[in-house]
Order: sequence, then structure tokens, then C-alpha cells
Amino acid sequence: MPHFNPLVEKLSPPPVPSVLAWAKAYDGARGPLIDLSQAVPGYPAHPDMLKWLGEAAASADYIGYGAIEGEAELRKAYADHLATLYGAAVAADNVHITSGCNQAFIAAAMAVAGAGDTVLMTNPYYFNQETTLAMLGINVELAPLDAGAGFLPEVETIASALRPGIRALALVSPNNPTGAVYPPDLLQRIFELCRRNGTWLILDETYRDFVPDATAAPHGLFKTQGWQDGFISLYSFSKSFCIPGHRLGAITAGPAMIRQITKIMDNLQICAPRSAQAAVARAIPALADWRLANRAEIATRANALKDVMDRLPQWKLKAIGAYFAYIRHPFPDIDSQFVAEKLAKLAGIVCLPGDYFGEGQENYLRFAFANADVPTILKLEERLAGFALPGI
Amino acid sequence: MPHFNPLVEKLSPPPVPSVLAWAKAYDGARGPLIDLSQAVPGYPAHPDMLKWLGEAAASADYIGYGAIEGEAELRKAYADHLATLYGAAVAADNVHITSGCNQAFIAAAMAVAGAGDTVLMTNPYYFNQETTLAMLGINVELAPLDAGAGFLPEVETIASALRPGIRALALVSPNNPTGAVYPPDLLQRIFELCRRNGTWLILDETYRDFVPDATAAPHGLFKTQGWQDGFISLYSFSKSFCIPGHRLGAITAGPAMIRQITKIMDNLQICAPRSAQAAVARAIPALADWRLANRAEIATRANALKDVMDRLPQWKLKAIGAYFAYIRHPFPDIDSQFVAEKLAKLAGIVCLPGDYFGEGQENYLRFAFANADVPTILKLEERLAGFALPGI
Repeated sequence: MPHFNPLVEKLSPPPVPSVLAWAKAYDGARGPLIDLSQAVPGYPAHPDMLKWLGEAAASADYIGYGAIEGEAELRKAYADHLATLYGAAVAADNVHITSGCNQAFIAAAMAVAGAGDTVLMTNPYYFNQETTLAMLGINVELAPLDAGAGFLPEVETIASALRPGIRALALVSPNNPTGAVYPPDLLQRIFELCRRNGTWLILDETYRDFVPDATAAPHGLFKTQGWQDGFISLYSFSKSFCIPGHRLGAITAGPAMIRQITKIMDNLQICAPRSAQAAVARAIPALADWRLANRAEIATRANALKDVMDRLPQWKLKAIGAYFAYIRHPFPDIDSQFVAEKLAKLAGIVCLPGDYFGEGQENYLRFAFANADVPTILKLEERLAGFALPGI
Repeated sequence: MPHFNPLVEKLSPPPVPSVLAWAKAYDGARGPLIDLSQAVPGYPAHPDMLKWLGEAAASADYIGYGAIEGEAELRKAYADHLATLYGAAVAADNVHITSGCNQAFIAAAMAVAGAGDTVLMTNPYYFNQETTLAMLGINVELAPLDAGAGFLPEVETIASALRPGIRALALVSPNNPTGAVYPPDLLQRIFELCRRNGTWLILDETYRDFVPDATAAPHGLFKTQGWQDGFISLYSFSKSFCIPGHRLGAITAGPAMIRQITKIMDNLQICAPRSAQAAVARAIPALADWRLANRAEIATRANALKDVMDRLPQWKLKAIGAYFAYIRHPFPDIDSQFVAEKLAKLAGIVCLPGDYFGEGQENYLRFAFANADVPTILKLEERLAGFALPGI
């Protein structure tokens, strides 16, 4: 048998399916399953969203090939949205539509780095970003995040990690897995460090619509002179519009970067699926209030989880933000993968082990609390309080 | 400004948009535009196809994340179709759904080769396969195809090109750009050469549904003992179902290869868009007769083009097959890109220049004749007969 690419062969299987398999082994003894694993909104898509998706998919207007960069109406609607959100001059030619944010990341990574180059990430990190770089043969260096600093990147740490030749720094804010929301002034200082070092800043903003405060811009990077020559913003329509199965995301960058991305995307899949783009272009302005209501609902869920965790002194809430909470489990000598497996199988609580997100994360669990409504979150108290590892 | 990845920066912009720009510059003087550029069926999707696409997209059943490998119903429907078509044991776990065949190719390429490895292609080649390998840093070696052999790969040529260490041989049959249909026994002999050399055979079969003879299997590779350890078949649902805008394709391979592909696809986009998968799963059995009728229609168009070319002795039809014809233009000292640009702008005939498909192809043009109905194809005679290059 011919060889596989060793960079791919040595990757672990995708983690989410294995966690869902643990969930299937739960017998229901403690009540219905509480799924805090994959980041999937725990409320349905808006009925109009489904209607528009159906109308566009049934239309002959979207069955042919489309523009590689994306449908003109979606690029414009998203750029207009960004211009308002950030109070900045963002135009349609700054936007490239992708099939979800993982694809936005791989396209951005390929645009700035090839095999043997180095990209800086944080530890912990979003695991698909690490496996993406690894399978491309791009070296990954990790800047540690400190639990004591709320898992925010520290300027000194980033400054010392940004040695010459590092092609990009990849950050996620609001963060996956910790939930931490990076303050605008911190992002601004990090961007300045990147620029001085000739390093692209790739910022995954998939979860920005779930930050409690809807009035403040997530950051001022789009207003920084020359942002187009160093900043790449990634986004997913999956979470905000509850449509992950339709696979839509976006890259926002300078036109010179968009031209590179277009060449990559032509090879990756020619264009993102078109009919869903048309539907989302309608939804961006039309469902603004609905998204605001969801943002408030997620904030309520976050508060419910904080209250629950306050009453569970052995389980430490180390960070919480727009979508995720990062929790230290009470078994210091036990690997988080074992804890998460037993939580799923015995307590019916499905979450991701910290191990999946980096080195030294074996004491942590990621709770995607946004998936569960408040009554469900409240049920965590009894289940976690009564949880014991077999044989421990 | 930080650097781009030089492997991406040095790629030419995607070729199809520039050709469509030539078409826009045509003033209509010779009659309506005849678009033989991109491979897009020149007839509409079946009304039921649109209906099913609309129903699935409007359904809440497909808005969540799906299985990375694809929807179970589509994997099964496609495997059943393959089993019948090839008279072979192909099962759902041999199938991985992708967002179109370009994505199928890049996923297959990444599964077998990394930067610095070598993949063998033919010259001419399908340009997106070449740019895909180039941007990944994979070396491309080219086995020449001879016009005198109808652009079929010759066994001796392949045998001498398959030196040790070549990770894969990438072929396209029916071929893009030439249209040539590779005979089953030729593919069988090439596969044996690949196996002896420890080389994967990647066969893009996007156009197989347009071979005139619907009764014969395109090849016997799926019936070859141990095929799963060396053969990778790629396919697109875009052409056969007239739905390129919905971006669906498939990889068929052994389960060990599918496991590698799944790891890659998780990073590329998690899963292909789901609702269109559900619709195509219905269409595979239901629209079998419609596809047969289209196959007959394409054969009629091929015959019409042959008749036209017979009456144009200066324009040489060098190969024709399931979708494309490869034509030698009558200007031996003029580059095909110049000829194609003038054909578009002055004669309203849009086609792709041979230059786009490899080295030494400057005397050729690719006509995607399947895009045009017979009355339109017949109009080519007058336009080509009367065509002269300005200043020549």
C-alpha cells in the first residue's frame, strides 16, 4: 500500500465525534443528557432564516458557479454590518466568503505561511487551528496563557514570543476554549507588536456576537491606520444565525490579501455554496433584533452558570465569556479526558477535555454553556456536586 | 507589510474570471455570445432537483453540524450508484462527501503528499490541480500527452515517468481539457504500474456521466483486488445534476484513506453543506432517466461539433469526448491566449486557451461544447470560418 502523508497520518482523529460517542454511552440515569460539547446554539434558527434558505436553494438563480470571493450582496451586507459594528471603513472588497470559519482559517494560514514557516498561537488554542497548521507542515509555537491572568494573552509574553520570521499570530477572541474576551486596548497593543515584527495578526471572531455588551465595538483594529496591511479578521455565520450545517464564514482583510485568498479558495472549492449566501445577505439586516435577543439570552445563561459554579467550590470557574466557560475540575491528578469521559457516561454532562486544547490543560474542561438553556444549566449543580470518579 | 506565502503569491489569478471579462467586452456584432468557457451544463437543473434543494434547505433537520464524512443517506445512495455502474462492491464507508471536486482533489492530494513530495500529472492538465499542488509546495512532474495518440496517456511514457518516490499519479478521465476518454484497459495497465511503484492513482471522473455509451463501466479499477490500497476516485455532482453553485463532490477510496481524508476535511470545513446533500441523495435514484437523456443530448452536441469542425479544415479537432473538445487553432505562431481573447471579443466565442492547461499548449483551445445546444454549435461554423486575427 502506498504511503499516506505522514503529517496527516499522525493527526489524531477529529475530537468531537469521539466525545459524541461518550454521550451515546450515557444511560439516562441522571436525567436527560446535558450537551455542552460542540459550539452549537441551543435555540433554533429564526423561521425567516429557514424560509429564506429554502427560497434561495429552490431558485435557479444560485445553481451556477458564483464569484470566488462570494455573492456580491453578502459581501456588501457583511461589510456594512462591520462598518457599523466597528465604526470603521470596511467595504465589500475587504470581504471574502468561505465555507465556515475553519476554512477561513486554513485559507488565511496558507496565504501567509507554507511548510517550514512558523505561526504563533496561544496555549490553550482552538484545536482545529493547530491541526490545520500541523497538516500543512507549518511549525507552531505557543505563547502560554496564564489562568491567573484570566487566560488573557500578556503583552510581555507575546512580545518575547514574537521573534523575527514568525509569519502570523493566531488569536481567538472571544476565546475558544476559555471564553475570555480580549479587551480592545490589549488587542491594539498586540497588533502593534505584530506590525513591528512583520507578523500578520489573524483574529478569529466567531463568537463576538455573544459578548454581553452590544454597544461597544469588539476592538479598534479596523480603525487603525494601515490595518489592511497586517490584520486578518475571521468570522462564522454558523453561531450567530444558527446555521452551521450551511457552512458559511468570512475573511476580512486588505484587498491585496483578499486577492491571495481568492487564489487559494479557487483551489479549495471554487466558491462557497451560493444559495445560503443569498439567504444570509437578507438575514444580516433583517434579523438584527433577533441576534440582540440571543446575545441577551447567552448573557443570562452565563450568569446562571456563574451562580451554579459559585455553589460548587470544588469546581473552579477560571474563565467565562461569550460562549464558553473554562473550568478546573476537582481531580488534580486525573487527566481531563478521563474526567470528561466519565462525566458524559455517568453524569450525562458532555463537555470537551482541556487536553484537546493544548499542553498542560489536563485539569480543565470546556463547557459550551451557550448550548443549554437556564433550567438545564441549573441542573448542573446537583449532577456536578454528586459526581465522583469510579475508584477514586 | 508582512509577507505573503510566496507559493501563493506567485500563482496567477484564477483563469476563468479573466476569460469571462473578455466575454463582457464582446459587442454582440456577430450575434449572441457563445460561451464554451467554464464547464457548466447548458440546460437547467431538473425542477424536482430545485424543489428538493429548497425543501431540505428550509428544514431544521440540516441546520446543525453534520457528519464530517457526509450525510449517511448520500454516502449510501452514491455508493449504491457506484456499485451498479462499476459492477463492484463499493460501500458507504468508501465514500467521503466534499464541497465539489476541486476540494476532493486537494483533500486527496494532502492525504498522500506534503511539501517537497512529488506528484505526477499529465501535460496538458486541469489547471486547478496544478495550482493546488503548487500552492502546497508539492512538486509536479509532467508526463506528456501526444496529440498523435489522441492525448491518451501512453503506457511507456507513464512507466518511465513513475520513478520511485512519486506519491501519486493524478489523471482526469474523461479528460479536462482534451475530452479524451481513457479506455478501461489503459487505466488498468496504468494502475498496475502505479501499484508496482508504490504510487496512488487519483482519477478525477467528474465527466464520466457524459460518455456516450451508458452501458459500459468507465473502468474496472473498483473490481481490481486490493483497489482500496491504491486507487482514489474523485467525482463532482455539479455537472451531472446541474448544481455547481451548491458545491458537492465525492471521494471514493479505501476506508483507511477515508479516515485520513476525514481528518483533513475537518480542518478544511468540518463538513460539506448538508441540505444539498439530502437533496442529491434523493436525486441519484430519482433522476437516473433524466441524466441518461442529458447524456444522449451531450452526445448529439459532440456529433454536431464534429460535423462543424469537418467543414472547417483550418481548425483541427484533435480530441473530443464527454464534455470538451481540444482544437488546434489556425495561427501556428500566435499564442492561444491571444487567439482566445480575440475570439471572445471579436467573434463572441468564449473558450479557454490551451496555455492555461500546460506547457506547449499555445496552439490549442478548449471548447466546453456541452454548454451549448446544437443550434448554437452550428453557428460556430460561420463565425470560425470568417474569423481573422487583427493585423495578422
